[in-house]
Amino acid sequence: MHYELYYWTGIQGRGEFIRLALEDAGASYTDMARVHGDEVMQPFLDGSQEGLRPFAPPFLVTGRQVIAQVGAILSHLGPELGLVPDAASRRAQALQLQLTIADLVAEVHDTHHPIAASKYYEDQKKEAKARAASMRDERLPKFLGWFESVLEANGGLHPLREHSYVDLSLFQLLSGLDYMFPRRMQALRPSLPLLHALKDRVERRPNIAAYLASERRLAFNTNGIFRHYPELDADA
Amino acid sequence: MHYELYYWTGIQGRGEFIRLALEDAGASYTDMARVHGDEVMQPFLDGSQEGLRPFAPPFLVTGRQVIAQVGAILSHLGPELGLVPDAASRRAQALQLQLTIADLVAEVHDTHHPIAASKYYEDQKKEAKARAASMRDERLPKFLGWFESVLEANGGLHPLREHSYVDLSLFQLLSGLDYMFPRRMQALRPSLPLLHALKDRVERRPNIAAYLASERRLAFNTNGIFRHYPELDADA
Repeated sequence: MHYELYYWTGIQGRGEFIRLALEDAGASYTDMARVHGDEVMQPFLDGSQEGLRPFAPPFLVTGRQVIAQVGAILSHLGPELGLVPDAASRRAQALQLQLTIADLVAEVHDTHHPIAASKYYEDQKKEAKARAASMRDERLPKFLGWFESVLEANGGLHPLREHSYVDLSLFQLLSGLDYMFPRRMQALRPSLPLLHALKDRVERRPNIAAYLASERRLAFNTNGIFRHYPELDADA
Repeated sequence: MHYELYYWTGIQGRGEFIRLALEDAGASYTDMARVHGDEVMQPFLDGSQEGLRPFAPPFLVTGRQVIAQVGAILSHLGPELGLVPDAASRRAQALQLQLTIADLVAEVHDTHHPIAASKYYEDQKKEAKARAASMRDERLPKFLGWFESVLEANGGLHPLREHSYVDLSLFQLLSGLDYMFPRRMQALRPSLPLLHALKDRVERRPNIAAYLASERRLAFNTNGIFRHYPELDADA
């Protein structure tokens, strides 16, 4: 099985959640826009290509299927890549956890773009600063504390008691937040020991370590979803 | 199979997407908080109840499973209620469409709460007005235009070419938007004929019509996700 991943070049963005699953499993895939340019996505996005038109990247082409939305892509890939438990009930849990990660990622985006996705950050800085306070003080402890409690209730190592795509996505989530809010994440660190240990273990998985050391892993930057603007960070 | 649905009393909110699926299928379910009060959710939300702790309502209890997140719940219920096509590839499409609805619903919430979910609307009115302009001018045409095009590409009647939980959720989405942005939705109406026809057909389905006429269907109000604040609406 060969996969085609379509996502914007130049940023990790939401594509990275898919990339990590493909890399961890050692899957054969082509990162289409990086090879052929962003314009290779156009026929899909404008609906002229066969298959269900994606609302936005990332999307995955596998056989005749076109699948968009991170949660739907991982829900499809999980069984094929051995990255989700076998039981249907556990697969539902994986999706539930992944969708909660997606909710936080959407809030992370809106932290630097609280007024309009189409406007520059510089044109909504004041509002971003106000929203960032709520993100740091309320949303991060609430979301990350919940993930920590799910880990604790399930043996401490994996939210699903075994390795899965959710572990990989939690690694990406924490990496992004560490980049975006270094001071705040440092302050929260003592309350999130299991999450940080999980992140460290994922980072050391051979395929992930090789990927992170490769040119395929882009650095975080202020064009992506996780953006480091020092004025949005604080200890508390 | 008897289901227990858990969601805040007093609003339709995200629980309504689940309620519509259960009602349309004529499923046997108990709307737990409406019967026993909101406090019946507490042991689940604080993690003292068995099963995967939900991050937030709605959640569904079925047998020993606790499932949260609208997309995950509908993905589980779809096959059991006959509300999704049989083929795995079509089920992936259903989830993809549902998650795009969820993305718009999250943006709808943040339209009246652009700075902090924990603050009153009245304390972020100015920012809400700015964000509402982007919602009306950019996001609504983009999202709804995409759903219209998916309908058009698939025979015009159903995004999945047959009735599914996605149809029910699109009905709810359009109903909520019609309530929240009556002027803007009226202006967009000529460009969305298939979506509005779908909404009308769902409304006439016998179980849905009976539900909408019952006391179980709450009215939209300004405590829910879709909120009508006249100052956030405009023709364009």
